[in-house]
Amino acid sequence: MDFKTLIRYDNALERINQLKTERRSVTLSVKESVGRFVLDDITSPSTFPPHDRSAVDGFAVKFEDTLSASRNNPASLKIIGTLNADSVPKFKLQGMECARLFTGAMIPEGSDAVVMQEDTEAVGDHVLVFKQVRKFQNIMRAGEDLHKGDIILHEGERITPWHLAAMIEAGIEHVKTLDVSVGILSTGDELVSGRIKNSTAPMLVALINNLGISAHFHGNVADDRKNIVDALKSIDDDVIIVTGGSGPSSVDLMHDIVLEIGEIIFHGIRIKPGRTTGLGLVEQKPIFMLSGLPVAALVAFDNIVRPALATWFGIQFASGREVKAILTRSIYNNDGVMMFVRVKLFQENGRTYADPLRTTGSGVISSVIRANGYLVVRDNLEGYKDGDEVKVKLIGDYNENIP
Amino acid sequence: MDFKTLIRYDNALERINQLKTERRSVTLSVKESVGRFVLDDITSPSTFPPHDRSAVDGFAVKFEDTLSASRNNPASLKIIGTLNADSVPKFKLQGMECARLFTGAMIPEGSDAVVMQEDTEAVGDHVLVFKQVRKFQNIMRAGEDLHKGDIILHEGERITPWHLAAMIEAGIEHVKTLDVSVGILSTGDELVSGRIKNSTAPMLVALINNLGISAHFHGNVADDRKNIVDALKSIDDDVIIVTGGSGPSSVDLMHDIVLEIGEIIFHGIRIKPGRTTGLGLVEQKPIFMLSGLPVAALVAFDNIVRPALATWFGIQFASGREVKAILTRSIYNNDGVMMFVRVKLFQENGRTYADPLRTTGSGVISSVIRANGYLVVRDNLEGYKDGDEVKVKLIGDYNENIP
Repeated sequence: MDFKTLIRYDNALERINQLKTERRSVTLSVKESVGRFVLDDITSPSTFPPHDRSAVDGFAVKFEDTLSASRNNPASLKIIGTLNADSVPKFKLQGMECARLFTGAMIPEGSDAVVMQEDTEAVGDHVLVFKQVRKFQNIMRAGEDLHKGDIILHEGERITPWHLAAMIEAGIEHVKTLDVSVGILSTGDELVSGRIKNSTAPMLVALINNLGISAHFHGNVADDRKNIVDALKSIDDDVIIVTGGSGPSSVDLMHDIVLEIGEIIFHGIRIKPGRTTGLGLVEQKPIFMLSGLPVAALVAFDNIVRPALATWFGIQFASGREVKAILTRSIYNNDGVMMFVRVKLFQENGRTYADPLRTTGSGVISSVIRANGYLVVRDNLEGYKDGDEVKVKLIGDYNENIP
Repeated sequence: MDFKTLIRYDNALERINQLKTERRSVTLSVKESVGRFVLDDITSPSTFPPHDRSAVDGFAVKFEDTLSASRNNPASLKIIGTLNADSVPKFKLQGMECARLFTGAMIPEGSDAVVMQEDTEAVGDHVLVFKQVRKFQNIMRAGEDLHKGDIILHEGERITPWHLAAMIEAGIEHVKTLDVSVGILSTGDELVSGRIKNSTAPMLVALINNLGISAHFHGNVADDRKNIVDALKSIDDDVIIVTGGSGPSSVDLMHDIVLEIGEIIFHGIRIKPGRTTGLGLVEQKPIFMLSGLPVAALVAFDNIVRPALATWFGIQFASGREVKAILTRSIYNNDGVMMFVRVKLFQENGRTYADPLRTTGSGVISSVIRANGYLVVRDNLEGYKDGDEVKVKLIGDYNENIP
């Protein structure tokens, strides 16, 4: 193969979008489901709260009985019972009656508001109310949180801790989630011999786990056609990523191997770094070919593999956030490729600046550590000038202070 | 106790900052360290790459031998050897000589640039070079990524996948990380009886895990002084969170229990929701008292517990991101408290708007699901007006498109 006919980035995404993959599901206890993706809309099977509840500690009253109540002119109501979050009221309030109750307690019949304890003083079997309340004040209405049929999660959303709380409230105990795993295989004699340490595969495993997807590392294999084919065939994950061997050289075996046992969807993209990124299908299973160099692999993962997983499995990842910044140094795109330039963001006089890092090799992982964002230069642009306002995609948790 | 003397939010943080806690550490294999926090600066013990390496597949040359090379006037160089990422060169380039080499290969003595394979054509034992190269072009210089002593992670930073890659490159195999766990205990007869499901504790466990800290749930206990004291004393986590029983009522036992077996640092804050939030110390161990209602607990966790953990353990959490938005409806702060108002952000005509959700109870978890941010109204403000530009803290992964 050669790399004289690289495809454009958008074209790679189009080819990805045309592929279909099966979605497997696994039903989990909701308590173990945080971070997973739901396959269907999750709706509430019940109304919550099921009845009016007190939002505070105090006294259930008829709001009309408190009209014009004040410290100088308190309303005096008779206490006819006490209710906690565990009680079922067995009485009904009549005029000038009240019930002591605690947060979460069911509102008794005849009551339509709750006076906070701080605004009262109990005197024997009566309570003095010092402040008037509005109708339904301090009451959490039945169904205020969830009505039966309300959507808690949309298909493909990732379950957060507050979704978990809502599912528990709604009485949901189990939830069907996406079951997908990615297998990673690394090729390279230099990895097998130990002369070069494999930093790319562990990084990919961690990146995939952070997305909420299982990842398995299947080891380093030598640059040997039979070894690699055997290793590929033994992997039963849904998607495979092979690192290394993706280039155009004679020692780069991946292209020919995928051609031999499957088909190439694309190989070689006009992006920098990540130019040698490829995608094949072997027995309907997607196999990504990524550079063995960590930064090239990181850029390809973020911009090719991640959107592919989202599309194929119908899930939504948190989208990378962007900030606007002023470029401190010109960037030239001489090669008509899409460039991912690592930049260091900083603030000065209330403005945000992006300082492009000077690096030569696509393997320089420290550039990602020193950077807190990257700038995408589209392949049809000649670059950006010093002083241009650009959009920067954030890496990690850089927090711009809003000027 | 009563809640007539609530303290201000800032005052609660000051009291938190005055407390000291011990930091325990655990040494982990770097591959298991992603998501953990480092206790010291992590510096590179070695220089990486240790020697000049090729960033591409091609030919190692003397750059001077390629001057003015073009397709019409190629330079013809003699190939004297082949190097892959695993080879140690045993020769030195003389004038008009070159070596075939692959990405990652060590640059042989005498060479100072690499010509990409695409810009060459091999003819027998010679290669025609069609493009001139600059000095050091396509070479990843020794130490370009990391010099010995370079800081990979600063004290208190959270380890990301790319930090992992850098540590592996640098030859770091183990790393000392923070070992801290939070124990959660829930109180309430209504939870023990099962009349009300505990959604708050599992949510807190998930929130804490998402921060990179271990969390253990120690069950629901009845509103009984002895039960609660026994349960508290059996917990050996570094920090305890008790949900429920934090209010001012007679059924709320936590204040008196903490007073009895320890001391109260504060209890009751002028925030809404989350007013009943408290902090005590029992045998030097911090015990947070949080509402049993999920949203009040969530707000208190985010704004009290989270900054406390960061301060006490010297670690940095990703700071919540903020966006500017235009308020669609006025918000009134009648009570002089600090309000956390859930808002729904949306875009219209290139502007971002924040629509405050109408809710009464602090328990309405669906307000967090429907919201994608919250607006903080400081206690010295009377509120915000419809049309005001406000800062909104993001919940989850709302991504504003930059207008």
